[in-house]
Amino acid sequence: MNTSQNSVPRLLIIGAGFAGLKAAAEAAKYNLAITVVDRRNHHTFQPLLYQVATAGLSPGEIAAPIRGVLRKYSNVEVLLGEVDSFDLEQKKVGLRDGSDLLYDYLIVASGATHSYFGHNEWEELARGLKTVEDATEIRRRVLLAFELAERQAHISGHAEPVHFVVVGGGPTGVELAGTLAEVASKALARNFRHIDPRTTRILLLEGGPRILPAYPPDLSRSAQEQLERLGVQVRTSAQVTGVEPGQVRVGEEILPASVTLWAAGVRASSLGRKLGVEVDRAGRVIVSPDLSVPGHPEVFVVGDLANLKDPKTGNLLPGLAPVAMQEGHHAAWNIGRDLKSKRREPFHYIDKGTMATIGRAAAIAQIGKLHVSGFIAWIMWLFVHIMYLVGFRNRILVMLEWAWSYLTYQRSARLITGSTYLPGWNAQQHEHESEELSVEQERARARLA
Amino acid sequence: MNTSQNSVPRLLIIGAGFAGLKAAAEAAKYNLAITVVDRRNHHTFQPLLYQVATAGLSPGEIAAPIRGVLRKYSNVEVLLGEVDSFDLEQKKVGLRDGSDLLYDYLIVASGATHSYFGHNEWEELARGLKTVEDATEIRRRVLLAFELAERQAHISGHAEPVHFVVVGGGPTGVELAGTLAEVASKALARNFRHIDPRTTRILLLEGGPRILPAYPPDLSRSAQEQLERLGVQVRTSAQVTGVEPGQVRVGEEILPASVTLWAAGVRASSLGRKLGVEVDRAGRVIVSPDLSVPGHPEVFVVGDLANLKDPKTGNLLPGLAPVAMQEGHHAAWNIGRDLKSKRREPFHYIDKGTMATIGRAAAIAQIGKLHVSGFIAWIMWLFVHIMYLVGFRNRILVMLEWAWSYLTYQRSARLITGSTYLPGWNAQQHEHESEELSVEQERARARLA
Repeated sequence: MNTSQNSVPRLLIIGAGFAGLKAAAEAAKYNLAITVVDRRNHHTFQPLLYQVATAGLSPGEIAAPIRGVLRKYSNVEVLLGEVDSFDLEQKKVGLRDGSDLLYDYLIVASGATHSYFGHNEWEELARGLKTVEDATEIRRRVLLAFELAERQAHISGHAEPVHFVVVGGGPTGVELAGTLAEVASKALARNFRHIDPRTTRILLLEGGPRILPAYPPDLSRSAQEQLERLGVQVRTSAQVTGVEPGQVRVGEEILPASVTLWAAGVRASSLGRKLGVEVDRAGRVIVSPDLSVPGHPEVFVVGDLANLKDPKTGNLLPGLAPVAMQEGHHAAWNIGRDLKSKRREPFHYIDKGTMATIGRAAAIAQIGKLHVSGFIAWIMWLFVHIMYLVGFRNRILVMLEWAWSYLTYQRSARLITGSTYLPGWNAQQHEHESEELSVEQERARARLA
Repeated sequence: MNTSQNSVPRLLIIGAGFAGLKAAAEAAKYNLAITVVDRRNHHTFQPLLYQVATAGLSPGEIAAPIRGVLRKYSNVEVLLGEVDSFDLEQKKVGLRDGSDLLYDYLIVASGATHSYFGHNEWEELARGLKTVEDATEIRRRVLLAFELAERQAHISGHAEPVHFVVVGGGPTGVELAGTLAEVASKALARNFRHIDPRTTRILLLEGGPRILPAYPPDLSRSAQEQLERLGVQVRTSAQVTGVEPGQVRVGEEILPASVTLWAAGVRASSLGRKLGVEVDRAGRVIVSPDLSVPGHPEVFVVGDLANLKDPKTGNLLPGLAPVAMQEGHHAAWNIGRDLKSKRREPFHYIDKGTMATIGRAAAIAQIGKLHVSGFIAWIMWLFVHIMYLVGFRNRILVMLEWAWSYLTYQRSARLITGSTYLPGWNAQQHEHESEELSVEQERARARLA
């Protein structure tokens, strides 16, 4: 199929996040043969991942099969595949399984991943939150911490509080810390006999002078107050210098951490560097005002992988879903302009406001000059996020889940799946688990043999 | 806690399946200090696992945290732990982490697992369906088979049908085969561009002369007809002699199998043998009529792990949820009789009827002498199963999911999580995946270092 020359121009879109899906939907209007490639079969609604990590929603409720979402566009096809290389001269993309995809137009929208600031060894102990797998792993660790504390208290007769440390005071860190506080104080409160989850210590560490630094200082302050009201201890100007089993270092200080969560930094997908064009220090591709790559008008980079300054403010456009969606749409629209032999237009971001949630009935929002906090901001947040949730069925279900858990404080997706090993929990558990791991390793080896 | 002598007798229940939960609920009425130990934190509603495996329901919808279910019983506590050994003389149970639990009464309800009839090497290729992890792994493989077929067709220009082979014509095999047919012919029908999921071949292999052998012959025949109407090919008297990557052997015949599912046999949990009392060939513990272990009136075995003949028919009681629930209840009730210094009663199973689902609007049911097939049997099945589903919230959600998917044919929990490796798919894929596995292995090693 690939090798035959088609009269219809081929558009290849890499990544089915917010940017990629919006690009596909816009491009479907034109006379293009569109292929969307993603290494997962589902689009993940990242703004609600923290709800999966804290057992409020199931993965299926915040993820939708890409094929299902794009099914209605007859000129769009979807391929599961991992992109490995680019040949911009030959207009060819190589997949990991060795096959090639040819294109006339290319939109790269492969997003961002966690950054551990050169400490990749922290990743295993301090999981970040970008994928469904990350979310279920964090859920496993959070729930397991309470289970192991209960078992230890049952055996020793002595209850020790559970400690959660969230590293990074951006939107993800804030919503994780706030929601963990709610889980510990409400959802789990009467579920244990030997420990009291309400004694759980939740510590939010931010390296800079204030949390949510992208927001105005008054909203940062409000967010910190709302977090503290929920029982979260916030420490700013706290640089993490070490992540170890059961503890986190800030300078010389050692802080206990049953579970450490990472929300401190992102870097661009490695595909940016593989393009062979100019990237910034974070690996983002520096794009022209029309979102194409300089020297390659047929190649666009959009979403978190793109580095573009807002011409109005001179600031880099932030890695937010609205930016990604507008960029994805605009790149496809510019391709449409090409097909109609019209001049491309530069991209302009329309800021409709930003918001961050903190917990139950707690949020902040900025809409132009309007700053909103607390319950009203939370209702706005809820409304906007549920409305944008991909797929009609999911919207209703999530709304019901939310209404149910708001009224009852219950969190129902409390599943620990996979192993019952928690890094750094205790030596005995660790030792036993190592047997299990070697069985897994042996099995993997046997499978490959 | 364990070492202190309590005046209240301690009841230890191992396993929080249907039998264990019913035992705990009944025992909670008496003056007992009850501990429920399970190696998972959630109760799994096994009769609906096939819906998770076929992407109709999310794991969170058919599993409930054990703590949540038992929270209301103030004399019941829940421990996450894996039982490793028994000391019936010292009345002591050893956990895998090295700690001991003492008891005055013990109810063992650890259930059953898959049996590969001595061919444990088939397990990796032909996954069984007993746990949430099994179900999401089967879902991953089923969805991935279509994704890889689409990719291969895109590259080669030649579409090959996907082949599913379900081994075992009991209730699980029948519902898996029937639902897979529905998924292929309806839910996925318009989602692909290069392959047509309606060409999917689904083969159900049964070793005996008819499927659903526990039911009367007329219902077996009806079930087979209903399956064939859904597009499933049924082969009886077909003994599987080999499970290999991409194929299954029946005698000398080689049958293509993109994915093989195992529903052919169960064996009792290994804890039966660890009790050191008499077990049958399948590892089930032979119990006295009051459900206790001969020589140990303080130890009960219930559910799929128990071997007890129905005094009315002389047949072994089958491994069904109603049997497990009634046994669990009865064992706890007999302990209550002890406490009231009354004579224990033998267990009598009350058969309220059995039913098996086949697919959309297709099922069979036997209630005493009444044999029902088709839509009416399916409505009965649906009603009974949703009513029994643990946890009120889940019932509503599952009912909504079902109504939605009945009306739209959609299956929304279509998530592939974890790796995109499919055993035996193709060499190239395999080779690439081996790199990924070694990274995982290295990471596991690093974690243990």
